[in-house]
Amino acid sequence: MDRYTVGVDFGTLSGRALLVRVSDGCEMGSATLAYPHGVMDTALVTPDGEIPLPPNWALAHPMDWLEVLGTVVRQVLASCGVSPAEVIGIGIDSTTCTLLPTDGEGNPLCTDPRFSSNPHAYAKLWKHHAAQKYADRLNDIAARRGESWLGNYGGAIQSEWTYPKLMETLAEAPEVAETAAFFIDAADWLVWRLTGRRTRNTCINGYKSIAPDGVHGPADGFLAALDPRLPALIRDKMSAPVVPVGSRAGVISEEGAALTGLLPGCAVAAGHADAHVAPPSAGVPKAGHLFAMIGTSTCMLLPAAEFVPVPGVCGIVKGGIVPGLWGYEAGLGCVGDAFAWAAENCVSPAVVREAEERGLPVIACLSEKMAALKPGESGLIALNWWNGNRSPLGDTDLSGLFLGLNLATRPEEMFRALVEATAFGTRAIVENYRAHGIPVTAFTASGGIAQKNPAVMQIYADVLGMDIGIGASKEGPAKGSAIYAASAAGPERGGYRDIFEASAAMGAVSDRTFCPDPANRAVYDALYSDYLLLTDYFGRGRNDVMKRLLALRTAARRN
Amino acid sequence: MDRYTVGVDFGTLSGRALLVRVSDGCEMGSATLAYPHGVMDTALVTPDGEIPLPPNWALAHPMDWLEVLGTVVRQVLASCGVSPAEVIGIGIDSTTCTLLPTDGEGNPLCTDPRFSSNPHAYAKLWKHHAAQKYADRLNDIAARRGESWLGNYGGAIQSEWTYPKLMETLAEAPEVAETAAFFIDAADWLVWRLTGRRTRNTCINGYKSIAPDGVHGPADGFLAALDPRLPALIRDKMSAPVVPVGSRAGVISEEGAALTGLLPGCAVAAGHADAHVAPPSAGVPKAGHLFAMIGTSTCMLLPAAEFVPVPGVCGIVKGGIVPGLWGYEAGLGCVGDAFAWAAENCVSPAVVREAEERGLPVIACLSEKMAALKPGESGLIALNWWNGNRSPLGDTDLSGLFLGLNLATRPEEMFRALVEATAFGTRAIVENYRAHGIPVTAFTASGGIAQKNPAVMQIYADVLGMDIGIGASKEGPAKGSAIYAASAAGPERGGYRDIFEASAAMGAVSDRTFCPDPANRAVYDALYSDYLLLTDYFGRGRNDVMKRLLALRTAARRN
Repeated sequence: MDRYTVGVDFGTLSGRALLVRVSDGCEMGSATLAYPHGVMDTALVTPDGEIPLPPNWALAHPMDWLEVLGTVVRQVLASCGVSPAEVIGIGIDSTTCTLLPTDGEGNPLCTDPRFSSNPHAYAKLWKHHAAQKYADRLNDIAARRGESWLGNYGGAIQSEWTYPKLMETLAEAPEVAETAAFFIDAADWLVWRLTGRRTRNTCINGYKSIAPDGVHGPADGFLAALDPRLPALIRDKMSAPVVPVGSRAGVISEEGAALTGLLPGCAVAAGHADAHVAPPSAGVPKAGHLFAMIGTSTCMLLPAAEFVPVPGVCGIVKGGIVPGLWGYEAGLGCVGDAFAWAAENCVSPAVVREAEERGLPVIACLSEKMAALKPGESGLIALNWWNGNRSPLGDTDLSGLFLGLNLATRPEEMFRALVEATAFGTRAIVENYRAHGIPVTAFTASGGIAQKNPAVMQIYADVLGMDIGIGASKEGPAKGSAIYAASAAGPERGGYRDIFEASAAMGAVSDRTFCPDPANRAVYDALYSDYLLLTDYFGRGRNDVMKRLLALRTAARRN
Repeated sequence: MDRYTVGVDFGTLSGRALLVRVSDGCEMGSATLAYPHGVMDTALVTPDGEIPLPPNWALAHPMDWLEVLGTVVRQVLASCGVSPAEVIGIGIDSTTCTLLPTDGEGNPLCTDPRFSSNPHAYAKLWKHHAAQKYADRLNDIAARRGESWLGNYGGAIQSEWTYPKLMETLAEAPEVAETAAFFIDAADWLVWRLTGRRTRNTCINGYKSIAPDGVHGPADGFLAALDPRLPALIRDKMSAPVVPVGSRAGVISEEGAALTGLLPGCAVAAGHADAHVAPPSAGVPKAGHLFAMIGTSTCMLLPAAEFVPVPGVCGIVKGGIVPGLWGYEAGLGCVGDAFAWAAENCVSPAVVREAEERGLPVIACLSEKMAALKPGESGLIALNWWNGNRSPLGDTDLSGLFLGLNLATRPEEMFRALVEATAFGTRAIVENYRAHGIPVTAFTASGGIAQKNPAVMQIYADVLGMDIGIGASKEGPAKGSAIYAASAAGPERGGYRDIFEASAAMGAVSDRTFCPDPANRAVYDALYSDYLLLTDYFGRGRNDVMKRLLALRTAARRN
């Protein structure tokens, strides 16, 4: 009998279940469903009507996730003709930090009629940015106290993470904080719904809740300095057994079985974050092997044997990616988003017409022309900071640059310069690791850009001077979750001993590897040294023109 | 009886005659005709067929100009119902340095069947750039010898000017140099055709033939160092009486009358250059009053009482703009050309579609959206060096820059940043004069951009912090030539005593003056200081990335 696992990936707008054969990782089928409430970022939709939301809010309705979970798991089993008895495990990943308050049984507080009109009672999505002032306060206090964990988080905690969101609720909706029995991340809450057991996982706990070892959060003294109510809130409402990623959080309960149609006793993996769960999909949970999810932005995940407080890294967490290794997370704030920007704002009427005539998206037409150019031919260089510089500078107030423009410059040349700049930015992260003694010996890419645009990947190989393998799965996170589920099931259920064994058997890269061309590499080495020079000049305080422009822009838009 | 003058402006592609009433400068009418041969830049069109031309060549056929001159003067008189007896003077301006070899009677050498296949026997247009290596050699020798006049020409002679073109002919077609009786500029040649008298004028002689006082060229020792044959060539084949601009070169001869239909004895003004002739059209030939022709590029002309070797100025010539004053010429290498580039290469599919639906050119649509933005709102800054920096850096190897880009940046914001950058570049030239003790007390603009785009002119006023008047004539050069013709005619024929009196009576600015808005000015002062900082960093050797990019581009295109 073949055995299967299900990976369920909870994205921002929809959830997707992928059914995978345990023996070889073959993807049997998938099912997707959008959340009925979508992202609530301008108005909260309540049973009593819509309530406008302030700027920078982004909420989700947790019951949407249960509805999707119940539907897609049944759908994928049915469509593949696989019976629940053949499924040995399920893994859940989600966006993060996506945090919700619940009652003692795990019912979302927003389902309590007393709170259905209170935005703080809903799930605050990863991209809820309204807690910035609490993050600023937290970072001030942490810096003043010289908190040692700052080195694990690039020197600053982001407004999207756990503590700023909790501080916001405490300050702005104390009744929610008081009434809630628990606050929990989306992935852990879904695991609780499946198993009846409330846990936390080393990944989300580590990266989002200031737990560098994946388990232990900040000291009470620090929490009390943020808000005197916070130590008790964390102790009473957020603490739970921490389960390492790769292990089993529990098994399907009767309630979980009723929800999904899976059989009670089926293994449920520890919750995981949607990017960090993906490396096993390409078989790469090894120290020194960098896995890059290259899509709208790039998330770069690197397991390493040692801890070094590398500057400009978003998070360094023990057991955060795979158990037993330090997980380094860094990234670029925009990649596919920047390419889409170029196709929307930096094109010629001729390209628009050509795309129309050929029935192609403008970006496909532009990308084709870009691919025909030679390195250096455009005479352009760009700084890829259209959405700030996430790593290694960790500065969201930086902005993009094109340099070398002349009257003969064409849109495809600007497009190529932008692609090259994201490759230079990727190389800068890799070299930053190496400069601090963290080895990067292999590079595997996954995600939409990596899988759909070979010309971009060739540029990356030429710029990095490394072979680049491409993850074979088009559903990296869901596939990763399914592999973690096989690890959670363990050999006794027909799964694997650990995530390393599971990845080796079930993960895969595609046939094509991109290898650096020596001549191109030489040109890119020259351009890269100019990229570094410009990075230093504009990104490290020698000329703060980008910040002055941002201040002028903010002032002009206020008036 | 009303009296009239005719100004004839010889542009790159066509010639235009404008008939003007002497008493008040009223423009009666105009006639235009394109040159039959156009610009010959890929192939020479000869009676025996086409001959391919090497890159960077640009030739004209001088007989085209005679054909146009004969046609347009008759046409404009006929269409306005003005008789030749009412015309007291004619003025000619042309592109420059546009140089041709002739026989002893002034027949172009290219009309001699022995030379009709020799490209060097045709007129080398102002934009013939094939003599760069001779210009490099000339500049090397001049720098080694410490030639004092280098300070009058921004430290370097351009490849388009007289000597590099002559050196090219001597080196590559010695038979042309030997057979030619004379070499002469287009405007002076046309004056010769009209008057029977061969002259040179202080403007073109001064700016293009290294004659800082408008009259005396370089010493024989320098010329001999360039080419031993050059001193004799200059003495025998280029020398002629130098006539100051504003005075009379002669009167219409029988041949000139047959050509144009004007009456013998009608005054003919000294030849002039097409930009330098224009300030009187707006009534501005005064010291300290800057006149800017803002079109595809910007030419800025400033009369001043004193000579100071201001760095980065293209030419400083006594009597080069108006008699008796030093004429300072500086400029921006591209303005309208850069705006056109943006409309061709930096737009959104939405703007393209909107322009199509509204039946507007894309650039008009973009310009309208740009005008609705506030200073600073885009968060962008640009360096306007899409065609190098002509003044004050005098460096053609520099290139353009956009900085401050983010995912919300729209095409109209980039367009506005480019407009603002040309205004900053204009201010940099004005401030460069002031810093060297040359006053700039008033600013009048003319040309296509100045007259058609009020939003651009408001930005210029806000950036410069000066009132900007706009020349009333849409035909600045032809109008200027007509005013110079009234000065050449003199009071005895019903004209004016000098160009100052003629300008005051015949030149005019439009009703609308653009005045700086104090709030906008403050924002632009802030942006301008960043423009200067970037100029210093990228333009003065602190970071030569633009030159390195150009070298990579050149190498990539060669392979």
